[in-house]
Amino acid sequence: MTVSATKKYKVIGTRPIRHDGADKVTGRAIYGGDVKMTGLVHGRILRSPHAHARVKSIDTSAAEAFPGVYAVVTGADFPDLQDKIANLGEGSVNLADLSANLLARDKVLYKGHAVAAVAARDVHTAEEAVKLIRVQYEPLPSTTWVLDAMKDDAPLLHEDLRTDSMGEKGEEPTNVATHLHFETGDVEQGFAEADVVIEREYKTASVHQGYIEPHVSTVLWNQDGHVSVWTSTQGSFTCRQQTAELLQIPVSQVTVTPCEIGGGFGGKISVYLEPVAALLSRKCGRPVQMTMNRDEVFEGTGPTPGSFVRVKIGATKDGRFTAGEAWLAYDAGAYPGGMIGPGCMCVFSCYDFANAKVDGYDVCLNKPKTQAYRAPGATQAAFACESVVDELAEKLGIDPVELRLINAAKEGTRRVDGPVYPRVGFIEVLEAVKASEHFNTPLEGPNRGRGIAAGFWFNIGLKSSVAGNVNSDGTVELIEGSTDIGGSRTSIAMQLAETLGITAEEVHPKVVDTDSVGYTDVTGGSRVTFATGMAAYECGLDIIAQMKQRAALLWECDASTVEHDEGVYSSNGQSMNFKELAGKLHETGGPIVARGAVSPEGSTNTFGAHIVDVEVDPETGKTTILRYTTVLDAGKAIHPSYVEGQMQGGAVQGIGWTLNEEYFFNDSGEMQNASFLDYRMPTCLDVPMIDCIIVEVPNPDHPYGVRGVGETPIVPPPAAIAAAIYRATNCRMRELPISPPRLWKAMSEK
Amino acid sequence: MTVSATKKYKVIGTRPIRHDGADKVTGRAIYGGDVKMTGLVHGRILRSPHAHARVKSIDTSAAEAFPGVYAVVTGADFPDLQDKIANLGEGSVNLADLSANLLARDKVLYKGHAVAAVAARDVHTAEEAVKLIRVQYEPLPSTTWVLDAMKDDAPLLHEDLRTDSMGEKGEEPTNVATHLHFETGDVEQGFAEADVVIEREYKTASVHQGYIEPHVSTVLWNQDGHVSVWTSTQGSFTCRQQTAELLQIPVSQVTVTPCEIGGGFGGKISVYLEPVAALLSRKCGRPVQMTMNRDEVFEGTGPTPGSFVRVKIGATKDGRFTAGEAWLAYDAGAYPGGMIGPGCMCVFSCYDFANAKVDGYDVCLNKPKTQAYRAPGATQAAFACESVVDELAEKLGIDPVELRLINAAKEGTRRVDGPVYPRVGFIEVLEAVKASEHFNTPLEGPNRGRGIAAGFWFNIGLKSSVAGNVNSDGTVELIEGSTDIGGSRTSIAMQLAETLGITAEEVHPKVVDTDSVGYTDVTGGSRVTFATGMAAYECGLDIIAQMKQRAALLWECDASTVEHDEGVYSSNGQSMNFKELAGKLHETGGPIVARGAVSPEGSTNTFGAHIVDVEVDPETGKTTILRYTTVLDAGKAIHPSYVEGQMQGGAVQGIGWTLNEEYFFNDSGEMQNASFLDYRMPTCLDVPMIDCIIVEVPNPDHPYGVRGVGETPIVPPPAAIAAAIYRATNCRMRELPISPPRLWKAMSEK
Repeated sequence: MTVSATKKYKVIGTRPIRHDGADKVTGRAIYGGDVKMTGLVHGRILRSPHAHARVKSIDTSAAEAFPGVYAVVTGADFPDLQDKIANLGEGSVNLADLSANLLARDKVLYKGHAVAAVAARDVHTAEEAVKLIRVQYEPLPSTTWVLDAMKDDAPLLHEDLRTDSMGEKGEEPTNVATHLHFETGDVEQGFAEADVVIEREYKTASVHQGYIEPHVSTVLWNQDGHVSVWTSTQGSFTCRQQTAELLQIPVSQVTVTPCEIGGGFGGKISVYLEPVAALLSRKCGRPVQMTMNRDEVFEGTGPTPGSFVRVKIGATKDGRFTAGEAWLAYDAGAYPGGMIGPGCMCVFSCYDFANAKVDGYDVCLNKPKTQAYRAPGATQAAFACESVVDELAEKLGIDPVELRLINAAKEGTRRVDGPVYPRVGFIEVLEAVKASEHFNTPLEGPNRGRGIAAGFWFNIGLKSSVAGNVNSDGTVELIEGSTDIGGSRTSIAMQLAETLGITAEEVHPKVVDTDSVGYTDVTGGSRVTFATGMAAYECGLDIIAQMKQRAALLWECDASTVEHDEGVYSSNGQSMNFKELAGKLHETGGPIVARGAVSPEGSTNTFGAHIVDVEVDPETGKTTILRYTTVLDAGKAIHPSYVEGQMQGGAVQGIGWTLNEEYFFNDSGEMQNASFLDYRMPTCLDVPMIDCIIVEVPNPDHPYGVRGVGETPIVPPPAAIAAAIYRATNCRMRELPISPPRLWKAMSEK
Repeated sequence: MTVSATKKYKVIGTRPIRHDGADKVTGRAIYGGDVKMTGLVHGRILRSPHAHARVKSIDTSAAEAFPGVYAVVTGADFPDLQDKIANLGEGSVNLADLSANLLARDKVLYKGHAVAAVAARDVHTAEEAVKLIRVQYEPLPSTTWVLDAMKDDAPLLHEDLRTDSMGEKGEEPTNVATHLHFETGDVEQGFAEADVVIEREYKTASVHQGYIEPHVSTVLWNQDGHVSVWTSTQGSFTCRQQTAELLQIPVSQVTVTPCEIGGGFGGKISVYLEPVAALLSRKCGRPVQMTMNRDEVFEGTGPTPGSFVRVKIGATKDGRFTAGEAWLAYDAGAYPGGMIGPGCMCVFSCYDFANAKVDGYDVCLNKPKTQAYRAPGATQAAFACESVVDELAEKLGIDPVELRLINAAKEGTRRVDGPVYPRVGFIEVLEAVKASEHFNTPLEGPNRGRGIAAGFWFNIGLKSSVAGNVNSDGTVELIEGSTDIGGSRTSIAMQLAETLGITAEEVHPKVVDTDSVGYTDVTGGSRVTFATGMAAYECGLDIIAQMKQRAALLWECDASTVEHDEGVYSSNGQSMNFKELAGKLHETGGPIVARGAVSPEGSTNTFGAHIVDVEVDPETGKTTILRYTTVLDAGKAIHPSYVEGQMQGGAVQGIGWTLNEEYFFNDSGEMQNASFLDYRMPTCLDVPMIDCIIVEVPNPDHPYGVRGVGETPIVPPPAAIAAAIYRATNCRMRELPISPPRLWKAMSEK
């Protein structure tokens, strides 16, 4: 179902078959693991068994002497990167930290931390050789809970870390890497005006993105110094830059070929294997392929932060929010640089708070370095804020949707971190919730409850490039720099097709390597259909301008007199369609090569809301999702099936996060459930059909009104499900996951 | 040695290491035979044992039933292409003929003509299965000598062929496919004014391009109908178009990835294997790889035409040519469409003939369809014309170089086929001959002689596309559509580097597939460094214009005030070099993506002359090349080493053609020497160092003055060597090859 108020398009809004479908269903798509080449050898990594330890020595001699071993590397093989910072588009990265995360130097900071790597003739030989590397550790006390890690007596991960608090460096060593503070209005005065104030604390566990395909990379460091990388990555240029910076070679000395990717969700932005495989390749002169096992994915790559969030909101009797206060502490993981920024930006972002204050802390502890995971940091914050809003609604006796409508952010609302919203669609989303069949169908039966929650993601623009080549048969080859994780080849191609007035099938999108297209930032932050789509639109305008010149040559008129309308070029009563004119290019000056490169400003501000019905088994505490409806302002849904896919995927990941998923650590800080058997993600048997309502309030900053749709759908589930569970069980659950034992315990205590 | 009169460049004219060198010397370059993929099967072709026969039936049932066979195809699997013509840029092609050349239908027209093809699990199984195909032939009389094939009672290859004589169709069936006629001035009057007239007849044999790498192609016809081709080809887009036309699918349904190529010289323009492998792949659903054996290359692909040429030239006592007349008959091979056109254009192209007449005949006979071979058709013509000029010089008592200088074509000279030369460098080439150390060093000793001859090629422009992406480290990725046979990656990259004021190494050229770059015509006709280089220049101007805008943003000035000079951008006292500005792109609007697409008009008109010293063994008739100097007007030599490589390569191929190479047919029209053992190409032991003198008379139609250099060097050798042999032996040899037995016979008869 689509609630639309936008103009009619011919291609946009339709549901063509995806361009990459055939290659995928026939097995011809090349994933990272499909890369084969002459002389390929296989790499394996030795990982720390300790959550925290000093590395006293590494002896690789036995591994090096093992038959079939080609090369062994340790952190000492990386260049010294002390104090080097790289700007990766999405934010700056401390290269020394990134390097040490790939191969530890003086200390290991989490169980699974990479220590050394081996390349051998086959993966089994490499595995055996890895076991022959002798590492002397001095184990240290560890910590895996964010509030513990903030204590004065916590084990220190980085002895030189000082809190950079509002621009001032602290004097004492700490695990707190960053302290953010946003404030607007007069918070004290705001709370004084409130009739009701609710303050609650929320906890969430580390959860993993859980992509199907493990990390896999193949690297050849050729003898001329050129490094070629074939990898599963969300950003070929991001991978290129990280690899180049870590190896201290120019970016143009690295070519990254992005393979098809089996999921990323934010977890395949940072490099793990590429620079290590490069070092191995340089040593042995052969291409090196490295593939992680599932336990390495869990223990060696970045989950989303575990968190502690305290939210306090005051409201008047008639439901107007007078003040908000939030205090957030998020895992950074082993190295600084977590998701606290967007957590702080998003915690109050759905509502119009005249008075609000947000404090956020990025905290190092003995877990893998955290990474982005779909609207990174927003879900934890929304779980807290939306749950408090639900409690306020109950206390004020106002319907939760109405309470949200009273306070909903709209055009002109200033977010606590500063930006003022342009036209946004939150009110339309909430109205769509109210109008939905789900909302208007009463939920009956014992142990059942319905919950509602909202979510927000601000989206990013960054940089995108495309090129377009017109074929003589009236089709267009579209070269894209954006790796395609969730169907962006098609959503970008459709925007070019719409611009040119041809069909989606007449545009052939292709994702190429970093040598063959202009710089393009990572596929993430819901930016691709927005920004790369904009590049495709620019490319379309370039093609149209050139086509007009060709028509003018044919008709012996001035190009300025040639009009273009939906694929038809005309002047003075003469007209040709795109295909006819494309067939005349060879006789009018040769090929048309076009381009689009953008760096759009502003954000795309996507709001959503979810309705969920649950039933809780009073005997076991198991929660069953009975019905689930997601509502999202897509701005304009380019390919509604893909938008629905994002809505459904985000909801299901949010359901897993809410009900079951967690990194379970023992007292030594060792993860105990690093497999898909023990780390429980939802299967299709665990969820009902996820219904989708697409709302379309066009984004004024995009030619086709696109908003990012990839992130927001994961934000509402924890709060929505917790609210539903409350209505089913009378238990307010404030810690994730709301797993059967935890819920059963809460119900038992009640 | 370089004789230069052009402006100074920083990059152009230097000799950087080739960009593709490392991949080639480290074995990492992917040639056609290196293509491997999942499920690959192997194809083999059944070929006709007869030079001419009617195909009565083909029974493939036993082959189909053979274990390990996946598919069998015959000509009947091709679509019906009667009367379909395709324009392939270089000229139109009759698709029915092309299809029948790939898999014969009703008749086989030469020994080695493909009849059927098999795909099987391995090449040995395919070979066995091919032998199980039963073909019933009705053998027909055959002919392999062009004058025989023109006779009224000659065996007819195509019963429906009528001579298309000066636009009029004949009434009688014939093997003559085309009759060309060029005429200028009053030839009769011209000869009347002559003091001396010489008329001679010349014959040449079929010779092969002799590239090292046999034809090899891999094709996947995927289940969505998309055809992917990996192949050794001179033109990825030409291959794409031929394949699409022969299969009657849109060009955009075919993707051609050009692999590295082990030589082409004109012989890898026409498709042989790709459409056949495609048909096999469609039948069996797997990728099919086909590789020719050497005998298949000789017997199944196109040699250059054997020829008969009669040339008559009249001159005054003081050496002025008063009239010329030429009559040329060239092999077309099995199907119409040979090299007679350029033969007729080039026969008198070195000289200023006020009165001349040229008649040319394209003649079908029972040899493989002829193909281009370096200056196609010009060598045969020049052998005749230049030999007559040498005889005239002797008769007139004028030095052969002086006689050529008296009559040399120059700016304003009208060629017999019409075009008027712009600034050309023939006089400068002849002056360089006269000034050369070789020319001025007397040749002494018995059985020795020196010869000189000139040559010409007009070169073509056609269409080329490139794209350029600026990296933040100040380098540029250059995407090219031209397959790189002879170093064009470097010669094109150098032109972009010169334009941008950066080094050759800072441009990274890459040849990509047909989906990833704009339409680009074949690599041939000496066009690539000229036309694709022009596209690179256009791309450079596009980059400069965009860089100026970025500088203007940084300096808050108008872009029109920003100057560019040799890589430095400046305005109002501020300045940045290319690298500095490239590092600022991310903060000034994002990536720079640039393009160049050209369809240059006009030709590039390259003249050359060779000096050769030989010694003939009076006992055996074996000719030894003692010394060889090539002189060429390169316009402007972008990379002199590559120009020298073309000069040396062309000369050596011309030496082989002159002294040893020939298709040797028995009376049944069967080639008897289809191997490199029996088809005698020169080795490095057969030739001395080939000295090179590059003359530079800039081409006014190219921004850097480039002329094509790939073709002309093969044109002078036969005439030059024949002149040298004459002076060594007193025998005027007028038939190629001047092999030891033929020369010994001539010497014996004297």
